[in-house]
Amino acid sequence: MNFFEDFQVGRVFRHAIPRTLTSGDAAAYIALTGARQPLHCAEPLARALGYPACPLDDFLVFNMAFGKTVPDISYNAIANLGYADVRFRAPVYAGDTLACESTVIGVKENSSGRSGVVYVHSSARNQERREVLSWNRWVMVAKHGSQPAPSPVIPKLPTEVPPAEIAVAPFLRPGALASEASGGQRLWDDYRPGEVLDHPGGMTIEEADHMSATRLFQNTARIHFDAFAARDNPFGKRLVYGGHVISLCRSLSHDGLENAFAVAAIHGGTHANPTFAGDTLYCRHVVTSRDELPGRADVVALRLRMLGVKNEALARLPAVPVGDKHPALVLDLDYSVLIPRRQRP
Amino acid sequence: MNFFEDFQVGRVFRHAIPRTLTSGDAAAYIALTGARQPLHCAEPLARALGYPACPLDDFLVFNMAFGKTVPDISYNAIANLGYADVRFRAPVYAGDTLACESTVIGVKENSSGRSGVVYVHSSARNQERREVLSWNRWVMVAKHGSQPAPSPVIPKLPTEVPPAEIAVAPFLRPGALASEASGGQRLWDDYRPGEVLDHPGGMTIEEADHMSATRLFQNTARIHFDAFAARDNPFGKRLVYGGHVISLCRSLSHDGLENAFAVAAIHGGTHANPTFAGDTLYCRHVVTSRDELPGRADVVALRLRMLGVKNEALARLPAVPVGDKHPALVLDLDYSVLIPRRQRP
Amino acid sequence: MNFFEDFQVGRVFRHAIPRTLTSGDAAAYIALTGARQPLHCAEPLARALGYPACPLDDFLVFNMAFGKTVPDISYNAIANLGYADVRFRAPVYAGDTLACESTVIGVKENSSGRSGVVYVHSSARNQERREVLSWNRWVMVAKHGSQPAPSPVIPKLPTEVPPAEIAVAPFLRPGALASEASGGQRLWDDYRPGEVLDHPGGMTIEEADHMSATRLFQNTARIHFDAFAARDNPFGKRLVYGGHVISLCRSLSHDGLENAFAVAAIHGGTHANPTFAGDTLYCRHVVTSRDELPGRADVVALRLRMLGVKNEALARLPAVPVGDKHPALVLDLDYSVLIPRRQRP
Repeated sequence: MNFFEDFQVGRVFRHAIPRTLTSGDAAAYIALTGARQPLHCAEPLARALGYPACPLDDFLVFNMAFGKTVPDISYNAIANLGYADVRFRAPVYAGDTLACESTVIGVKENSSGRSGVVYVHSSARNQERREVLSWNRWVMVAKHGSQPAPSPVIPKLPTEVPPAEIAVAPFLRPGALASEASGGQRLWDDYRPGEVLDHPGGMTIEEADHMSATRLFQNTARIHFDAFAARDNPFGKRLVYGGHVISLCRSLSHDGLENAFAVAAIHGGTHANPTFAGDTLYCRHVVTSRDELPGRADVVALRLRMLGVKNEALARLPAVPVGDKHPALVLDLDYSVLIPRRQRP
Repeated sequence: MNFFEDFQVGRVFRHAIPRTLTSGDAAAYIALTGARQPLHCAEPLARALGYPACPLDDFLVFNMAFGKTVPDISYNAIANLGYADVRFRAPVYAGDTLACESTVIGVKENSSGRSGVVYVHSSARNQERREVLSWNRWVMVAKHGSQPAPSPVIPKLPTEVPPAEIAVAPFLRPGALASEASGGQRLWDDYRPGEVLDHPGGMTIEEADHMSATRLFQNTARIHFDAFAARDNPFGKRLVYGGHVISLCRSLSHDGLENAFAVAAIHGGTHANPTFAGDTLYCRHVVTSRDELPGRADVVALRLRMLGVKNEALARLPAVPVGDKHPALVLDLDYSVLIPRRQRP
Repeated sequence: MNFFEDFQVGRVFRHAIPRTLTSGDAAAYIALTGARQPLHCAEPLARALGYPACPLDDFLVFNMAFGKTVPDISYNAIANLGYADVRFRAPVYAGDTLACESTVIGVKENSSGRSGVVYVHSSARNQERREVLSWNRWVMVAKHGSQPAPSPVIPKLPTEVPPAEIAVAPFLRPGALASEASGGQRLWDDYRPGEVLDHPGGMTIEEADHMSATRLFQNTARIHFDAFAARDNPFGKRLVYGGHVISLCRSLSHDGLENAFAVAAIHGGTHANPTFAGDTLYCRHVVTSRDELPGRADVVALRLRMLGVKNEALARLPAVPVGDKHPALVLDLDYSVLIPRRQRP
């Protein structure tokens, strides 16, 4: 239960409660988000692609790892401000155990003197101590007392994960991803930078749904769970955990990005507006660039801007770019997915 | 995302996203439906009955397979009109992967010219390509444009699965189903055609519950999930997926049909009225007939009419037959279960 | 579906529907309760402590076993009045199958002549017939007819499980419970009788959440599920199953009791007031005593009073003892946990 004063640059937190992920978590994740990427739910396909078993959904892993950091980093967070340099480094399987740690890499007190921004670099490792995920985020955290402000340290965070540093499993055989399995024909070659994809589905969020997802991730930030205390927050109610919004947008986007079988990196992103129970989420993607990966002619990265929108038909949204300040915008994520490249005969 | 025009008789859809079912799915299914049939949750009993492990609940399998067909067949469905000739052909176990396909077997445009009825035959196979389930259904689907109506083709669908064609696992030892395990004494011999069973429980449906179940099945029909868009549908709100209603009725009916350990076939059925969150479901069964199965003296089929009723005490319902148009009736299913026969000493 | 008249002292119920517990149940339990005790979710830690695998959460086991008894004992219960002499005798693992039985040990008709109190001793065994849990409870059950009252039999129930009778697995190596894994530094030596722990979290309960948890436990008591029928009960709505309240309080109490890795016994307890959807739960613990266990210098019992409180900030509660009649009090449980003792160098 740390406050702003507790974060000194260089301090390392070894987060408690390592978590063994299971097929039970995978099923609960599908029930709570509607995830449908076939790599994560079709064992024969996963094996055909070279994996020893279905790897767990990338955002299930991300949210589980993120959840581990909450009691130390963001239990008292006022807002989760942004992400940078998020790298999905290795697949995670049912039976793997994740343990996480974070290092404080920056602090800056707000001018109000009542809170400050904390920058952390976090990392998740499996039971063999292999790093499977690393990420940076910054959060606004309340001050506890009235100590003088520390010297501000604002880290230089990269604005992207360079394509050359994107991890691809050496065993991967992307050609095995048949359109029959994924439901879509479009490969990397078929997307054009600037193209806008308005995904057809919508998902209304209930209190029970977002709380169950956030509990599954063992994320304890009280703003998501305590309606009685939330009467006193600026919104007067519980907020939906931002990671659940990301998961829902990923699920909605399957129709249109059927062959984007894995998430490779998040270059940056913000939760533009809060999401509440009762809101209906929609997802638009904008194709940003197509990036070749060194040493792989068969799999490539597609860089995308994921826009999460609430309570507004996508057709009524302004053309790209949606202003960051559009009141319907709840998520704006700059990320890259892996997708097969069409094989030349 | 097909419209009425996209369905030509003979067209085959190989549905995307095969699904590996797990013990996590079984647990989520119990949490969402209250399923209690002991064959599906008591491993020693399943082994005593001859199974290598607990087979998954029949309606979990049905709903999972059905869900696979939705993106191609009924994403734009206005209503799911009926079922016929549904056969549960082989048990499905945790670890099995289901892949489904459908063939269009009939089309008939409605007189309005704005929609039509599509008839499909669907089939689910496991990873060894063994057919585990097959079914026919017909749905009302919106037209996209104003093309002229195709010649109507209305398939002749059987009105029953004949008892001689009901699948029984050759290894089955039904005598192992002790009343201690199931909670009930009544076997096939104890039910009488015409008998009415009013099951005591009731289940109120919440939005989060039916959406979680429908997401678990990876059924994406938007009418179940999108409250914002649903403001414009005739009901002004989300509808509960009919397969979830079937699952709930099956669960409620355990008290009274304790030894009906497996579902053998659905001869026909309709969703008589829509179900919404907030509705409370009750279930009545009417015994239709007792059917012997060729070559088995120990296990027999009980044919039943499953009536799902909402927001009305069963005791206040009119005597059988409930008129199909009774406003409280939401489900009317003609099906057969397997149940042991009393062994003569 | 028994009524008060059906309970004769000495009658034994072998409860139906044995249940094989799985990692899917464990995941659903985490999603529904937010459970975080690391012994139950971190496989490497469980092995370091000497377990062959993660044992299932003690209150998951308790609620599953309890659920088995409901159809025979408390389907028609008006109120679940209390617990005594609850013993957690052996760990339960994914794959184990629980079967339960109960013996009537007391009856006492109420002066109204319309209901009575039934006392039962219940027991859960695994597939090897090893007893893993035993407990006593008493419930108020409706009378069916107007038979004369039976002679009252009120059993003498112990007011505590003596420390010498608390089960500790012989293989247990409690020293392996590092504060890094649990998130807390405090061991048995650091708690003082009389000490009050106000746990920081709060959890608002939704209808979908408590119903899903109660369905997961296959507890069928209709008061939790049937809003239509509940219009006629004294509260006019569904009640939350008391075992779910216990689970939530255990989860909330992780912050402050991080190393209380297992529940050893419940000496007694009552559900002081009903809980409904919409209520927000908080948890206070009062340390009662520190009990050494025979033959173990490394692990000891901490006896605690668990107070579940709703819709009231703990800081505004009166000092200990909270009067049993405080309207915000919903749970008052006298129980003991296992916790490592600091090793002397």
